[in-house]
Amino acid sequence: MSFHFEVIKKDRFSGARLGKVETDHGSFFTPAFFPVGTQGTVKSVTSEELKEIGVEVILGNTYHLYLRPGHETIGRLGGLHKFIHWDRPILTDSGGYQIFSLAKLRKISEDGVTFQSHIDGSLHFLTPERVIQIQRTLGSDISMVLDECLPYPSPYEYSQASTALTIEWARRSLKERQKKDSCLFAIIQGGAYRDLREESAQTLVKMDFQGYAIGGLSVGEPKSLMLSILEWITPLLPENKPRYLMGVGTPEDILDGVKRGIDFFDCVLPTRNARNGMLFTSAGKVSIKQAQYAEDERPIDETCDCYTCRHYSRAYLRHLYLANEILSSRLNTIHNLYFYIRFMKEIQKAVREDRLVDFTKRTASDHPSWNQESLPTG
Amino acid sequence: MSFHFEVIKKDRFSGARLGKVETDHGSFFTPAFFPVGTQGTVKSVTSEELKEIGVEVILGNTYHLYLRPGHETIGRLGGLHKFIHWDRPILTDSGGYQIFSLAKLRKISEDGVTFQSHIDGSLHFLTPERVIQIQRTLGSDISMVLDECLPYPSPYEYSQASTALTIEWARRSLKERQKKDSCLFAIIQGGAYRDLREESAQTLVKMDFQGYAIGGLSVGEPKSLMLSILEWITPLLPENKPRYLMGVGTPEDILDGVKRGIDFFDCVLPTRNARNGMLFTSAGKVSIKQAQYAEDERPIDETCDCYTCRHYSRAYLRHLYLANEILSSRLNTIHNLYFYIRFMKEIQKAVREDRLVDFTKRTASDHPSWNQESLPTG
Repeated sequence: MSFHFEVIKKDRFSGARLGKVETDHGSFFTPAFFPVGTQGTVKSVTSEELKEIGVEVILGNTYHLYLRPGHETIGRLGGLHKFIHWDRPILTDSGGYQIFSLAKLRKISEDGVTFQSHIDGSLHFLTPERVIQIQRTLGSDISMVLDECLPYPSPYEYSQASTALTIEWARRSLKERQKKDSCLFAIIQGGAYRDLREESAQTLVKMDFQGYAIGGLSVGEPKSLMLSILEWITPLLPENKPRYLMGVGTPEDILDGVKRGIDFFDCVLPTRNARNGMLFTSAGKVSIKQAQYAEDERPIDETCDCYTCRHYSRAYLRHLYLANEILSSRLNTIHNLYFYIRFMKEIQKAVREDRLVDFTKRTASDHPSWNQESLPTG
Repeated sequence: MSFHFEVIKKDRFSGARLGKVETDHGSFFTPAFFPVGTQGTVKSVTSEELKEIGVEVILGNTYHLYLRPGHETIGRLGGLHKFIHWDRPILTDSGGYQIFSLAKLRKISEDGVTFQSHIDGSLHFLTPERVIQIQRTLGSDISMVLDECLPYPSPYEYSQASTALTIEWARRSLKERQKKDSCLFAIIQGGAYRDLREESAQTLVKMDFQGYAIGGLSVGEPKSLMLSILEWITPLLPENKPRYLMGVGTPEDILDGVKRGIDFFDCVLPTRNARNGMLFTSAGKVSIKQAQYAEDERPIDETCDCYTCRHYSRAYLRHLYLANEILSSRLNTIHNLYFYIRFMKEIQKAVREDRLVDFTKRTASDHPSWNQESLPTG
């Protein structure tokens, strides 16, 4: 499978880059945000709706698909694209994050990781090689190496050993990779420690992957640490390879990443928040269940022209949410994803026009509520 | 609001009629099936999807909308059509069925009915007049009188008194009705007793409503009793008024109703079954969770050209159902509603061509599983 990345334009006043990716399933501009399609569906919406929203790439979770329905089933049915009716690029993660956050009784060895399925308790053993094979069977366009996702905080010695293991696993992944496979990204770990992060980055860069992900973030660390890690790492990464900040994040976090040279982002935030009735708007976050919206005829965001904002009032969306209607999740998801995609297009435009710093300042003052840590889980 | 019904064609070999209804929100042919939009949404699907499926009329539940978000709220927001973004006809029921099946601590008097909300336990009192006013505020195209929905079985004396009360309430409803209101249907009750059913029908017909509903069915009575009741009542109803068999039903029940001269049907069956993974197909009912579909590449129904069947395999639909994904409810609902709407169009065509009896025989032998009573609830 082909993969080509090119930096089209660098921002004069920050580390931001405007890039373009070409794959067998189409091209897209970066910085880009990938909605998460955990179990083979971006929850509640169809492929046609994702396209109408402007989504160009989705993420599939290898851990979930491996467990259910099973990658071999998906392979026999023609691969993930055909199975889920999505003909644009798909990035699959390696399962590392889920094994270390969802699975039970995990046991890590040099060879790989043993864990119990969170669904039925069945026992599984995954190696770096097997994770490459699984992603090959799924047929994703961008795949990731198996990594150990360090919790925060982790002691130095454990972090050191774990980072070395993730590097070794990356080496084995590269060896397993075949020419016809999709492109492969390494994952830089190293916990909260500068020397480990730098060593991880430098060693992985020498191995010459097609892209570099920064892992072990969004695991409860302070925001300032995330920014420091980005500042330590990105100068060490090759200019001509895409950089992927995994699991990030809020619009503000995305801007912070873009300014430091990040190209790819993914996060469940817009979709999960949508299902929890938390909506992103040009005037800040809106909790749709609030009584003040009971008879509010306005759309969620008067500056938005998504399907939801074109046809439905805040009053109706509040009603759907309180009545626990499925349509609530759908309409809210459409709006939040549209907000994110529009936001990424604005970022791309700002980089093209050398005004990302201004854009960031304006956005931060327009959206004070983005700075609040009020992310519901569910 | 205007309402016009016309019988275009009567079947030569059964009581079936092909009709046409015209309302301020558009026209539709009968026999017609109305999907149920309980709380202001046909669960999981949008208006655009309903239109693509071919749905021409939906039903709204007065009881639910009265309790949440409240008819007055909907009225202030421009009425039900605008609130829910549906510009085709809406039929609202009277709430009678829900008060007698869902609400708690109901107490009936000559004046009306007192009940506790199933949502928050709040106390409510509804009269026939108030139910007309509520539907006026909602702005539905077809409205129903408040009735007492008799459980099955009910003793003769209680049924007699209750039927008399429903008739008296119908009289009061007619008095409350204003010229600008939508058309009003009476509801024929009478339980399992022929004389009560006939008296109910004859008395209500004399009052000259714009249509006649047959109530108190689909409450657990044997199928043979439902057919008997239809055979007792329909000869007493005026030819030029629509007849509505409330809460019915399976494709087979619909055919049985059509043959006996029924024009309108509504039921939660296609939508509720969809959410429970039970799909209607030209080869009978399919329970999508079955292991036999795990790697089945075929659409649910190879003769179906709905959105779901055009793009998704049984294997994917099974996966979505087992993974408890919202998209499962959506795709299944689209398919089941499409099946019902296509079925109604085939019925209309068969009546037009005087071959409904043949159509019924062929359908019954093609779909043995339709005769099974295997309707999951949920």
